[in-house]
Amino acid sequence: MEQRTEIASLGEFGLINHLTKNIELQQASSVLGVGDDAAVLDHYGKQIVLTTDMLVEGVHFDLMYTPLRHLGYKSVVVNLSDIYAMNAQPTQITISIAISNKFSVEALDEFYEGVYAACEKYGVDLVGGDTCSSRTGFVISVTAIGEVSPDQYVQRSTAQKGDLVCVSGDLGGAFLGLTLLERERQIYLENPQVQPDLEGEKYIVGRLLKPEARKDIISFFADSELRPTSMMDISDGLSSEILHITNNSRLGCILYEEKIPVHDDARQAAFKFGLDPTACALSGGEDYELLFTIKQEDYDKLVLNEQISVIGYMTEPEAGAHILTKGGNKFKITAQGWNAFKEQ
Amino acid sequence: MEQRTEIASLGEFGLINHLTKNIELQQASSVLGVGDDAAVLDHYGKQIVLTTDMLVEGVHFDLMYTPLRHLGYKSVVVNLSDIYAMNAQPTQITISIAISNKFSVEALDEFYEGVYAACEKYGVDLVGGDTCSSRTGFVISVTAIGEVSPDQYVQRSTAQKGDLVCVSGDLGGAFLGLTLLERERQIYLENPQVQPDLEGEKYIVGRLLKPEARKDIISFFADSELRPTSMMDISDGLSSEILHITNNSRLGCILYEEKIPVHDDARQAAFKFGLDPTACALSGGEDYELLFTIKQEDYDKLVLNEQISVIGYMTEPEAGAHILTKGGNKFKITAQGWNAFKEQ
Repeated sequence: MEQRTEIASLGEFGLINHLTKNIELQQASSVLGVGDDAAVLDHYGKQIVLTTDMLVEGVHFDLMYTPLRHLGYKSVVVNLSDIYAMNAQPTQITISIAISNKFSVEALDEFYEGVYAACEKYGVDLVGGDTCSSRTGFVISVTAIGEVSPDQYVQRSTAQKGDLVCVSGDLGGAFLGLTLLERERQIYLENPQVQPDLEGEKYIVGRLLKPEARKDIISFFADSELRPTSMMDISDGLSSEILHITNNSRLGCILYEEKIPVHDDARQAAFKFGLDPTACALSGGEDYELLFTIKQEDYDKLVLNEQISVIGYMTEPEAGAHILTKGGNKFKITAQGWNAFKEQ
Repeated sequence: MEQRTEIASLGEFGLINHLTKNIELQQASSVLGVGDDAAVLDHYGKQIVLTTDMLVEGVHFDLMYTPLRHLGYKSVVVNLSDIYAMNAQPTQITISIAISNKFSVEALDEFYEGVYAACEKYGVDLVGGDTCSSRTGFVISVTAIGEVSPDQYVQRSTAQKGDLVCVSGDLGGAFLGLTLLERERQIYLENPQVQPDLEGEKYIVGRLLKPEARKDIISFFADSELRPTSMMDISDGLSSEILHITNNSRLGCILYEEKIPVHDDARQAAFKFGLDPTACALSGGEDYELLFTIKQEDYDKLVLNEQISVIGYMTEPEAGAHILTKGGNKFKITAQGWNAFKEQ
C-alpha cells in the first residue's frame, strides 16, 4: 500500500460516508439504504429470511495470510450461504466491523472492495452497518436478509426416512487450504527468508480464502421444480452437519465413503500432508457447500447435475448415523466439528 | 457467582442450546426462530426496518462497572431505539457475541437475562445469532428488525423550514453517569479499599447502565395522529444529531439553551463535577432519547405531553445551526460528538 490515511483523519461519519458513497441499490425491495437510523425494506408477499455471523481475527481468520479483499468477500458469502441453505434468495446485508487504528483507510477500502464484489456477484444490497474501534483485533459481523415464497423455505428438521442424502460440489478443500497456509505460516515465522511454496495448490487455497455460496444449486432446484426435504450449508464439516440433520429430523443415516466428493487437488494435498482425504471431508469445515435430502422419486431430477453427489440415505433413528468405508467397515459418525471454545 | 461452568464444557451447540432453550416467540411474524441456518419472518403488507449496532469492550463499555445483565439489556435497547427512531415497531432481533474463555456460562447467562428482559419488555423476538470465541475482549453485535405501515417511516432528511425541533425526556444524564463511574474507577484503581460513592447518583448511573428506548413516544405519535417530519435517536449527543438533521435536510436551525431538558439530578451532578449541564446535554452521548421535528400546526398535539420539549425550530440553510444561550449569546453548533478513532 502506497498511501496511508489514518482512519481518525476522516472521523466516524466521514469514514462511513467514504465507505458507502458508491453503493447503488439493486433490489426493488431496498426502499432506503445506508444513512439513517435503519434501512427500510419492502417484501410484500414473500417470507423474510434472516441470518447473522461473526468473524473474529485470530479465531476465524489470520490476517497474515488472508488478503483483506478476500476477507470482505468471504464475510458476505458465508452469510449468503446460510440464506441459500434455507432455499431462499438473499436480498440485503448489513455489515458491522470493529477495527483497531493500526488499520489505514486504504486497508479498509480493500476489505470493502471484497464486500462490494460479493454484493455485486450475488445481487444483494448493502443497506446498513456500524463501524467502531477495537482495542485489539478485527471483528466482523454480517447480517443477511433474504426472501422466499410462502412456505418454500427448507429446514434441517424435515428429512424423511428413505430420503437420499446429497451434497453439492466437493468437500475438504478449504481445510486442506488452511493446513497448507498454517504450515507456510510456521515456516515463515521460523525463517522469514523462505518464500511460501503454494505451487499447484491454487484450488485448495482458493477454497479457503475465497469460497462461493451455492446460488446455482438453489436456482437449479427452482428450475427443476425440486424441493429438498431438508437442507443446511456445510460450514463445520460434513459429519457435524449430517448429525444436525439426523438429530433434528429424529432419524439415522448411512453415508458411503466412496460417494463423498473430494477434488483431485484436495486428495493429492491430503496425501502430501499424510492426511486421510475422507477425514478432511468429514471433519474439515468452511467448504460452504449444501447438504440436503431429497425424496427418492426426485432422484431423476438431479442425476445429470455434475455439481450434486448422492452420498447416502436416511434411515430409522434406531440405526444411528454411520459411514460405510471403501474397505467395507461401518463407523459411527461423530461430530469432530469445530469447538470454538476448546481451542484456546 | 457461586458456580462456574466452563463454556468449553458445553461445546458450541450445547452453549447455543443452553442460551436459547427458553425462548418463546411473541410475534406473529416470527415463523421460524433460532436453530436453523436462518430465521424466517413474515411481514405481509408492512415495510421492514433493519438496523445493526456493535458494542466493544473497552470502547463502548467497561466490565469493571457494567453489570452483565445491564449490558445485555442495553445492547438490545440501543438497537430498538434506532427502530423507533424510524417511527417503526421493532419485531425481532438477532444477537452475535464474541467472548473469551475467561467468561463462565453463568456470566453469559447473566448477559442473556438482560437480553431476554429487554425482549420481553419491548415485545420483540430473539430469532438468531452467532456465538464465537474471542482472543481478547467481549464484542456484541445486535441486529433489529421492525415493521412500519407503508411509507410511514420517518427519515433524518425530511425536515422543513419552520418546523419545530423537539426532544423526548432529558439529556446529559448518561454522560454524567459515565463521568461518575469513570471517576470511581480511577479512585478504585488507585486505592482498592475505597468503596464507590454513588450516593444520590442513582438517576444518572441508571441513565448510562440501563437506558430505555422511547417506545412510548412512538405510541403517542400513533395515538395522536402526529407524524414527525424528521426523526433520529440521540446516541452521540444533541449537537452531533441536530447537525445530521440540518445537514441531511439542507436546513439551518436555532435551539434555545433554556429549553433543553436536563434532569435536576444531572444538573446537580454537573455542578459537582464542575461541568456545564448544557454542554453535557449537547455533547454527551448515550441518552437514547428521540430528536424530531414537527410542523408548527401540530404543536397543539404535543404541548400537554410532559415527556416532550420543544427546543427550537428549523431555519433556511444559510442561517446555519446555532444555539441561543440563557445569557443572550448566539453560538454556532459544532459536532463535538464521539469520534471512535481519535480516542486511542
